[in-house]
Amino acid sequence: MARAGVQRATPLVGARPGATAVEFALIDRIRRRVAERDDVPLGIGDDAALLAVPPGHWLAVATDTLNDGVHFPADTHAADVGWKALAVNLSDLAAMAATPAWATLSLSLPHADGDWLEAFLDGFLALADAHGVALVGGDTTRGPLSVCVTVHGLVAAGGGLRRAGAQAGDDVWTSGTLGDAAAALAQWRAGGAADPGLRARLDRPAPRVALGRALQGLASAAIDVSDGLLADLGHVCAASGVGAEIELASLPASPALAEDFTGDARAGLQACGGDDYELCFTAAASRREAIEAIAQALSLPLTRIGRIVTGRGVRALRADASEWQPERAGYVHFSG
Amino acid sequence: MARAGVQRATPLVGARPGATAVEFALIDRIRRRVAERDDVPLGIGDDAALLAVPPGHWLAVATDTLNDGVHFPADTHAADVGWKALAVNLSDLAAMAATPAWATLSLSLPHADGDWLEAFLDGFLALADAHGVALVGGDTTRGPLSVCVTVHGLVAAGGGLRRAGAQAGDDVWTSGTLGDAAAALAQWRAGGAADPGLRARLDRPAPRVALGRALQGLASAAIDVSDGLLADLGHVCAASGVGAEIELASLPASPALAEDFTGDARAGLQACGGDDYELCFTAAASRREAIEAIAQALSLPLTRIGRIVTGRGVRALRADASEWQPERAGYVHFSG
Repeated sequence: MARAGVQRATPLVGARPGATAVEFALIDRIRRRVAERDDVPLGIGDDAALLAVPPGHWLAVATDTLNDGVHFPADTHAADVGWKALAVNLSDLAAMAATPAWATLSLSLPHADGDWLEAFLDGFLALADAHGVALVGGDTTRGPLSVCVTVHGLVAAGGGLRRAGAQAGDDVWTSGTLGDAAAALAQWRAGGAADPGLRARLDRPAPRVALGRALQGLASAAIDVSDGLLADLGHVCAASGVGAEIELASLPASPALAEDFTGDARAGLQACGGDDYELCFTAAASRREAIEAIAQALSLPLTRIGRIVTGRGVRALRADASEWQPERAGYVHFSG
Repeated sequence: MARAGVQRATPLVGARPGATAVEFALIDRIRRRVAERDDVPLGIGDDAALLAVPPGHWLAVATDTLNDGVHFPADTHAADVGWKALAVNLSDLAAMAATPAWATLSLSLPHADGDWLEAFLDGFLALADAHGVALVGGDTTRGPLSVCVTVHGLVAAGGGLRRAGAQAGDDVWTSGTLGDAAAALAQWRAGGAADPGLRARLDRPAPRVALGRALQGLASAAIDVSDGLLADLGHVCAASGVGAEIELASLPASPALAEDFTGDARAGLQACGGDDYELCFTAAASRREAIEAIAQALSLPLTRIGRIVTGRGVRALRADASEWQPERAGYVHFSG
């Protein structure tokens, strides 16, 4: 039933659509390598996985797809693609204060490439192992390179950290530093070698899972910075029915970013650059001490960058309190 | 931050990567149209959905991706793509005897096309509504047309219908008719108009959800026929450590298939054609009466097509008991 010009050898029994010997070997390798969890009665290898959500918990589910040339540059190492595909999803769970538990992986590949697949898996499973996530199912199929991951986490029933909940007077905080991933992309586009530290932020984002969990009960709202600070904080404001003011000068910058970018270029990267996967969250001023204690405990800088106000929309303010207008706001991934 | 030649207008706040006004409108429309369920504390619109698995139940999770030109012909109507993307996933839950509950949808589109999106949604939500499935999250992004759906269902803790469990002496059964979808594909490839009934089987498969649930406790093993009967029954045999014999003459055929195809062509479509999404299951001979009662109750033909034997592998037998060898076994989707 092959179309003209497309021929493949398929085993008599045990075939999967688009599957080749290389992919079968990969699936076997995945099965051997994935972490086991007591709450997975049935993992990879049946029509569906069976999972046991512990009593008193809600399931948190997020899904995100990375496409070649849209969400990562074409020269991205396969291991970094694997890492990032899981990281962007764990970041969503972090913003929900959920503890990651299980993931499924749907991988479309233009052709079977054993080396690429193994490297991809190295990156994916390294991050999965770091967070105790079990890969419980998925599929591989033919198509342009695309990685769709669905992650499942757990929160205490009634818990979770939502976008709605920010109140006028709350502080606005961010974790880590902002603009690094966008800076690496800018350097890559300019054709030069990106600063390795910046490029690592683009390729291997660290989902702030421990922070999200620690913020449960302290933060009034949270989101992860995937599309750019102004855009993502805008989602929080829209969901909460409030506005926000951000002080550009307060945005935390890595030394590499501060060295390579100044003025409007730096402001644009920090306020509008995406893919940092830091958490942006709001909290009452009475929570400052507790939040600073979390920063110390996690060895992760947490910085106050503005405040929630009545009204609508997000304004970015210069040092002289005048409003800064980005050339283009809202992060546009890679090929945007 | 657009690449040369790629320009997009992005709203100041509220942007999502790859999102346009059309897609925002779609997301709003999805939110308005999706079914509500009491067990969804938080649905579309936050970093993750929050879901309440009822006590005493396990979660069943399956994920499958459909790619343009691989899993459906390019002339497939958008509504049929939407239907099928959910159907192939619900079919996995059916084979696990799970009751569908929630779905996430990750949609990659080469460009925003409002009409296409609305039609896609019509098909997707029609099937979702028919099974009481709530769409709880997902993303839309730019890329070659690809639809990744993850479905979540529920089984009683300790339940589920697995591939492992078939025993020598068991009957092998299939629901419905086999080969229709592959026949439609063969007619489409030949350039003629496919028989509308056959084409409907290809475009709008009916996941056998009620059957799967009814078979819990009766069937010893089950799988859905997505890759072709021999290939899929082969998975059951491999998982169960047994072999199987299938009688070609017993394979149920629709009138349209029987009229248009004979001999080896028909045998190939029925034994190796994929995309039928019937359930193939095994059960002890003592269960025949109960299974026939289910067929009556569901108005769905259930046919005994062979038996489980000791050994390994699946053999297809002609009427004279000689072994039939397919030209190519294992279904290869569309472009395979």
